[in-house]
Order: sequence, then C-alpha cells, then structure tokens
Amino acid sequence: MMNWEYSVTISDDNEYLVILDQTLLPSEEKYLYLNRKEDILEAIRSLRVRGAPAIGIAAAFGIYVLIKHINDDFKKAFDNIKKYLISARPTAVNLSWALERMNDTLKENDGSPLDVIKEELLKQALLIQKEDEEVCRAIGNNGLMLLDKSMGIMTHCNAGGLATAKYGTALAPVYAGNEAGYGFKVYANETRPLLQGARLTVWELQKNNVDVTLLCDNAASEAMRRGYINAVITGCDRVAANGDTANKIGTSALAILAREYGIPFYICSPTSTIDLSCKTGKEIVIEERDGEEIYVKWFAKPTAPMGTKTFNPAFDITDQKYITAIITEHGVIYPPFEEGLKAHKKIK
Amino acid sequence: MMNWEYSVTISDDNEYLVILDQTLLPSEEKYLYLNRKEDILEAIRSLRVRGAPAIGIAAAFGIYVLIKHINDDFKKAFDNIKKYLISARPTAVNLSWALERMNDTLKENDGSPLDVIKEELLKQALLIQKEDEEVCRAIGNNGLMLLDKSMGIMTHCNAGGLATAKYGTALAPVYAGNEAGYGFKVYANETRPLLQGARLTVWELQKNNVDVTLLCDNAASEAMRRGYINAVITGCDRVAANGDTANKIGTSALAILAREYGIPFYICSPTSTIDLSCKTGKEIVIEERDGEEIYVKWFAKPTAPMGTKTFNPAFDITDQKYITAIITEHGVIYPPFEEGLKAHKKIK
Repeated sequence: MMNWEYSVTISDDNEYLVILDQTLLPSEEKYLYLNRKEDILEAIRSLRVRGAPAIGIAAAFGIYVLIKHINDDFKKAFDNIKKYLISARPTAVNLSWALERMNDTLKENDGSPLDVIKEELLKQALLIQKEDEEVCRAIGNNGLMLLDKSMGIMTHCNAGGLATAKYGTALAPVYAGNEAGYGFKVYANETRPLLQGARLTVWELQKNNVDVTLLCDNAASEAMRRGYINAVITGCDRVAANGDTANKIGTSALAILAREYGIPFYICSPTSTIDLSCKTGKEIVIEERDGEEIYVKWFAKPTAPMGTKTFNPAFDITDQKYITAIITEHGVIYPPFEEGLKAHKKIK
Repeated sequence: MMNWEYSVTISDDNEYLVILDQTLLPSEEKYLYLNRKEDILEAIRSLRVRGAPAIGIAAAFGIYVLIKHINDDFKKAFDNIKKYLISARPTAVNLSWALERMNDTLKENDGSPLDVIKEELLKQALLIQKEDEEVCRAIGNNGLMLLDKSMGIMTHCNAGGLATAKYGTALAPVYAGNEAGYGFKVYANETRPLLQGARLTVWELQKNNVDVTLLCDNAASEAMRRGYINAVITGCDRVAANGDTANKIGTSALAILAREYGIPFYICSPTSTIDLSCKTGKEIVIEERDGEEIYVKWFAKPTAPMGTKTFNPAFDITDQKYITAIITEHGVIYPPFEEGLKAHKKIK
C-alpha cells in the first residue's frame, strides 16, 4: 500500500540501519544507510528519525548492526553500545524500552553460540518492527469502523507512517480507508511551531495518494463551521487512566471546537501509550521549549524582536470529556474510559 | 504615552505623508516621507500602511500633499489624484471613504480662494486623524471599565496603534490600563498565516513598555487552561446587526475556547465598523487567499511540497453567542446585541 515502505528499517543484507531522513522533508527524500555508532546516535539525537515507535525500531536495528561483527567480549560490547544509544535521547521511553528488549534476548540466549545469539537479536529487532506494524494495522481497522465513505477528516501533527513501523496511529484508519476505496478528504493542520503537519503529514499522504488539504491551525474552526470536517483524529503522547490525553500542542483546542460543532473527536492510541499509573491529565508535566522555535527557526527573518518573551508548551492536555472514543489495537473505547482502558491494557 | 507617536501622519512642514513602513517590522523601524503620487500609491498597495483607519488617514494626508502645490485646473487635478489613489486598493472601504470626505470639503468650499480651499483640506485631513484617535481613546476607556489590575489579556492579530491613528481598537484598553498602572500581562497570538501578532502586536507593545508574551495560536487553549488569561480582546473587520463578527482567521476558535474556559471574550469595534445592512454573519463573504501564504511566504524553505492543496480563509465569523460584550466609542453593548448596536450606530 505505502509508496515508501518504511521510514526506518534494516537493509536487505542486514548490514545497515536504514532511515528516511525526516529533517530533510518535504524538500528531499533521502535514505540514510548507517552502520557506525556515531552516525546512528546522531540520527536519533537530531530527530532524523522521530516518533516513539520509529525510535524504538531504529534502536533495535541499530544495536544489531553495530554488534553483529563483534566477536570478542560480546556482552560487554553490547552493554556499552546500549548505554551509548540511550544517551542519544535519555527521556525517549521507546528508545530504552527497545534496547532492554534486545538485552532480554541476549540474556535468554546466554550460553548459546555467538552466531545463534546474533540471529536471535536480529529476529527480536524484526519482531519489534512487525509488532508495531500489526498494532498500527489493527488501530486502522478498528478506527475505520467509525468512519464513512467520502468523509472529511482533520488531523494534527504527524501520527503517520513516518512515526511508526508503517501506517501510523492517527493515519492508520485513513490508510485503511484508502485501501478500501473510501475516498477520504484529509485536512492536515500545519501544527505550529514545528510544522509536522505541513512538513510530514502532507508529504506522506501525498506519497500515498490520499487527498490532503493543508491549513493553518487557525483555520480549523472555520473548516468545521463550513461542514468540511466529519471527524477529527489525532495520535497521543500519553493517555491517563481516566482518558485525559497529552498530545501535540493545539490538540485540546481541536477537541473543544469539535464538540462545539458536533463533530466526533477520536484519539488513536496503542495500548503501550496508556499509562494507568497516571490518574488524570493533571499529573502530566508539560515540556516547555525554547521560544525561538516560534519566531526564529524556519523563518527567513525573525518574525518578532529577538529576546521576545514566549510561551511555548510542546503539548497540551485534552480533557477526557471532549473525547468521543479512544481507538486501540484491541478495539474502540467509549466514555467513561477507565474500565475500557484497564481492560485493553490487560490484553496480551 | 506612545513611544512612536503615529504610524501614519503628516510631516511638521505639511509637505510629506509620513508612514512607518510596516512591511519592515519588526526588523527595522523606518519612516517614509512621501510626496510623489507613485510612492504613495505603492505604500498603500504594498501594505506599508495597513489597518482600515490608518489607510483612510494615509489617503487624506496623501491627497493633500499631492494637491497643495497645484494651482491650475485644481478640481480636475484633485479628481484625478482621488481616482488614482483609490486604485491602490479598490476594495478598502476607508480609502474611498476618506477621499470622499476630502472631496466633500472641496465642494463645500467651492468658489473660495484656492489657498482657503487648501487650508480647509488640510484641516479635514487632520480632523479625520483626530476623530479616529478620539474614537480609539474612547474605546480604550470604555474597555478598561471591564478589566482589573494585573489581568492576563489575550489578543489576536494586530488591532493596535499601527492600524489606527493611535491606541488601536483591541489594544486601546491595554494602553489605557498601562497609563493607569494596571500592570496587564498581554498574550499575543502570532496569528498565522500572516503573523501580524508576532510582527506587529509584539513590536508595538514592547515599544510602549507593555508586558507581552508571544505564543503560537495553537497554545491559546493551554494558556487558558492554566489560568493565564482573564480576558480575550480582539478587533473586528465587520459586525453584523445581530452581533456576529468577522475578524482575522482564528478569532472564532478563541471565542469558543474562552467560553469553554469561562473567560470573557470582548470585541472592540468603532461604530463605523458596525454594518446594520448585514443581518447575520452568514451574509459575510470570506476572502480566500493564495495558499503559498501558508507554506512559502516567510519561510527559509517551503514547509510543504510545492503545489500542495490548501484552505486559506483570511478571516472567520464569530457567532454572537460566544461574544461577552462589544465595546464601541460610545460604551459597552451586552447581548442580545441588536438594540445596542442600532443605538450606538445612531449616536453622532
């Protein structure tokens, strides 16, 4: 289905981590073939690969290609590379999660011949990729059940194939519908300040022949008022036990507007993103980023005087009361969300 | 009060139209001294002067400086310059309104000596400027009655001194409060796609020592949720008889969000902007602009693939039901708005 197969994968000869360099999009579609640890670290640190699942997959393939030709003191070398890669983005949960899974595989095969261990590590990395692809695919199928042909669908930021193994989360129902000839019209908010909607979502939907229209975040309300939008679908960074959801800045406004205009608002979330230890959105700390992202980065000239005071939160909390349903790989959860989230989280 | 006196005025020797070139802000504060018709036309056409009242003032001073040294066939010359200046922006209502007012002065003084006529034309242009300044000042005083000390005030686009003779409309209560030591904290949305909030509002508030914080339009909801915002105040392009208001794209979202968070939402409108012939917002046609404003203009590199389909409305309609009050130079109008709008419109 996808015109580009994967934004992160391993080369056919299993020698290179392959990454579509997302920092160059949409101007240039360049695939990086990486097998040096400095290059892999840099690619993760500089967001050439981004999106929680994609980072995990990059780490798994990355440690495999770095370790596969080492034969002396294998376990120590593995451990050193693991620590080195985690240092690329110490707070990226999926990065350490994927590397720990690779480490578990190493432990489970303790005592086996080195070539068997290496083979098992490759299998594990491929499995991490495949599992994510299957999760996304299932989210797509579950989400598609909520949608009708020819719908106008608004999305925010990029929760697409670029951020995952394939299909994405929020874009998975769109791709599933595209395969089934649903003829969706997608409205992609540009998503200031980092413009992931313009740079990434528009690019990947065009590559996959999905009808996509770019708009400023400011125009979402007017698009809804005109009846262009039949559903809003976004991904998420964290779902609390009560359904409150952290996602890219601007998401909470869309949810409030959607309710006001009588439009359903859906969150697509792999169960791995549900955090039952977090009771409500109030417990989620919101990262504030450098203000020059707003008025210097991207622009030919600064759009405001240098040194301007700014408010630049990276994401916001959407109160569960504005969410129509949460879509996971196991199905659709309607409010009140507590029980459904718990149940989906338990399914293995 | 203002650190820069006027964004548009006449030079001390009455020989030049003086314009602060807004296309160069915030990088450069450059005043243009214009007395050639080609330069004045270009300044209006290229938005070096912008904002309905400011354009009217520029036209009035402009025609005066162009005509003051003409002694032969004066009426015909006046008429030619009038038509020429209107051609700069044929749809700008205040442009033709101001020039017609100057034309009326010419007619009223028919038969007087030419130096008397010229003197009356200068008086009329100064009066147009002074009236606008007084209207803005009155809006400021009326708006201030709704505000308390230390409030956080959100505004959108630029309805400030740059767009009017002085003080602005939405920013007039802010300046009035600043003079009275209210210590407001202003939150200026950058206002995509044309970034008037970042480029103009932040600049003029900083120039006038007002505490201002820049944020992406996307962050408005989160700023409200945190309790940073006690009132939202914007200007307007047109107010319909029922109170529905057309203003810069994104305004309607702010009004809906404000109501949801329990924050008052105010529109500042000179009575000249109230259009009783327009029954509701449904009758207002919204201009759609070139999509490259979204993803090409301003940026070092295009943010989306060239040729991307776009939705780029210049303004949107805020339903009257989300508006807490409309502030004019004659006072404050609360819902239902019909009667108050009619009454304020009648006051001379």
